[in-house]
Amino acid sequence: MNIVTAIDSMKGSLTSVEANQIIAKIFAEKGHSVTAIAIADGGEGTVEAVMKNKGGQKITQQVQALNGQLVTVDYGWFKSEKLAVIESAAASGIQYLDAIKQTHPLNTSSYGTGELIQAAVEKGAKRIVVGLGGTGTIDGGIGVLNALGVEFFDQEDQLLPAKGSSLAKVARISVKKLDERLADVAFYIASDVDSPLLGETGAVYMFGQQKGLEKNELARYEEGMRNYQKIASGDDKPSKGDGAAGGMGFAIRFFLKGMVQSGFEFISEQTDLEALIRQADLVITGEGQMDNQSLQGKVPVGIGRIAKKYNVPVVAFVGSFKGNSILFHEEGVSVIIPIVDRITSLDEALKEANINLEKAVDRSLNLLTLMKRYGK
Amino acid sequence: MNIVTAIDSMKGSLTSVEANQIIAKIFAEKGHSVTAIAIADGGEGTVEAVMKNKGGQKITQQVQALNGQLVTVDYGWFKSEKLAVIESAAASGIQYLDAIKQTHPLNTSSYGTGELIQAAVEKGAKRIVVGLGGTGTIDGGIGVLNALGVEFFDQEDQLLPAKGSSLAKVARISVKKLDERLADVAFYIASDVDSPLLGETGAVYMFGQQKGLEKNELARYEEGMRNYQKIASGDDKPSKGDGAAGGMGFAIRFFLKGMVQSGFEFISEQTDLEALIRQADLVITGEGQMDNQSLQGKVPVGIGRIAKKYNVPVVAFVGSFKGNSILFHEEGVSVIIPIVDRITSLDEALKEANINLEKAVDRSLNLLTLMKRYGK
Repeated sequence: MNIVTAIDSMKGSLTSVEANQIIAKIFAEKGHSVTAIAIADGGEGTVEAVMKNKGGQKITQQVQALNGQLVTVDYGWFKSEKLAVIESAAASGIQYLDAIKQTHPLNTSSYGTGELIQAAVEKGAKRIVVGLGGTGTIDGGIGVLNALGVEFFDQEDQLLPAKGSSLAKVARISVKKLDERLADVAFYIASDVDSPLLGETGAVYMFGQQKGLEKNELARYEEGMRNYQKIASGDDKPSKGDGAAGGMGFAIRFFLKGMVQSGFEFISEQTDLEALIRQADLVITGEGQMDNQSLQGKVPVGIGRIAKKYNVPVVAFVGSFKGNSILFHEEGVSVIIPIVDRITSLDEALKEANINLEKAVDRSLNLLTLMKRYGK
Repeated sequence: MNIVTAIDSMKGSLTSVEANQIIAKIFAEKGHSVTAIAIADGGEGTVEAVMKNKGGQKITQQVQALNGQLVTVDYGWFKSEKLAVIESAAASGIQYLDAIKQTHPLNTSSYGTGELIQAAVEKGAKRIVVGLGGTGTIDGGIGVLNALGVEFFDQEDQLLPAKGSSLAKVARISVKKLDERLADVAFYIASDVDSPLLGETGAVYMFGQQKGLEKNELARYEEGMRNYQKIASGDDKPSKGDGAAGGMGFAIRFFLKGMVQSGFEFISEQTDLEALIRQADLVITGEGQMDNQSLQGKVPVGIGRIAKKYNVPVVAFVGSFKGNSILFHEEGVSVIIPIVDRITSLDEALKEANINLEKAVDRSLNLLTLMKRYGK
């Protein structure tokens, strides 16, 4: 059989690439031909996934992490397309929060992600995809912008540092020194975060506490963010995705004319996923936890919708399933297979996800071909 | 497809009959033809299972439970074959241990099971199957024998009561008053207990504590049992199955010439299971907890071995799987499907076993027929 596997990561246990490998190995050993598509949501692992799917060159760059400390990170470079793929989690990721001091959002900056963009521009990029997600900053993307030449001034027209504390103080923004080459670069935002910059579901209220804001600081921080949006854009209207990566979504959409795509749409387009699915006999997908919320366009349902158009069956492997399978069938997901095989704790299940996935795929393939193998 | 379903009970949640019903319904709804075979191990549910498989008449009888209290229980009667099917758990079951006082094994008796045998003899039975398992007594079957006319005497040649305390005291056994009609009755012992009467794996050391013996009473009780076997048979040699049902295995084998069968062999023979499997396209089986111990001849492996002879695929649904599936494949069990579908506690899993089984069967049937349904 001709198989396409495009399984999402299982958070806390397997990346998409790892899960695909397990699946591909088992099908290949039984003589099937497998094409693996790594899935990414814009967050950590996005560059790895794109490289896995498209090849390309890995460019290593030294940039500033949250508080200016130097770190060495990668982005993906596709020379013939003049395309760079950058993930904000690389330079500005939440993983740096534990490693350094003074990680309060007032003191951190997304500057490093801007440096990566700048490096890609130097490289000659004409298209830059910035994956948003998994960041430790809430600076509205002023760090990114500052690295590209944008300047922020307070009421006394003093230059402000590019960090969270400047959001409340900014009174004027100058794009005079913005790198001119950026006008010729098309930006794409790959993200699975739909949040606007402000409000209950925004960058501050929704994600602030996991990035180090205390509950009683939220209202004040939100006011700073509102000030920034108003100064920048003249209003405080919501726009989908602006709240991603602590507000980098807003900065890239508004200042760099970035176009928002879901992580899945981005991967789908990059890999010509629809054509691959159309030619497949069977598509494998899955995710960590599947429930009825997954119907809101998570990866397996995205895959199912494409497969349904071409009448290709889809089997989804999931860490855990709490949903109505009929609703998923309607979206083209033919069968949902939970990979747990006994009473177990969450900890154990996460630890054994690779073995459990392997066993689940093995028994499912066994079932898929059972009647044929027995000549029935 | 032509399906045979013969799934064992899932202890604590579903009987074999219930589990088969769930499976049969799903396959039938998809247009398949299903024959269900109820499985029994000789213990509680054996009569129900046989009735389900073979029809027959349910005979209700009042007999004495462990301490002489009257209870109303059933046995199965198959007139044309002059066959009675009795389970020891009905009159002498462990379920009575909580309900009454003085349930110390010294004070309890298997007399009620003997009364059921006597009733079957009165009915004209020429073959009597006694399912052993799930009893609350450890009287070596002297209750059973006494109800049929056997008498037990102490060293002063005083008649002893038919209960556990007499095991140590018996010096002479008289079969003079044993019902003469028993000579024309063929007895079969259906049991999944291989224990001998004495020793570490015997009726006392292996099962005594769950029937109310204290640990420090075991050695003394064992000596009583040894005295009884010696007086009865002249030696204390072990024989497989003698220790079933607190020693009823010994009594029925030795005094009534009972032939020992495993519960599965018994059902298999009664239902012509081999012929059914030979004609099937697919066999469904399963059990509550499957592990490598299940390879020692538990139901799914018994089924697998038959199916393998005729190259018929076998799918086993299990509450929980901790084993090496390759070893099961070698025994003819083609695929093992755990029915849990998420992280869950044992309590929850037992409570939801019916729903989980239903969902697991549904998705498996879905996989079995997936490629065909999509015309691939």
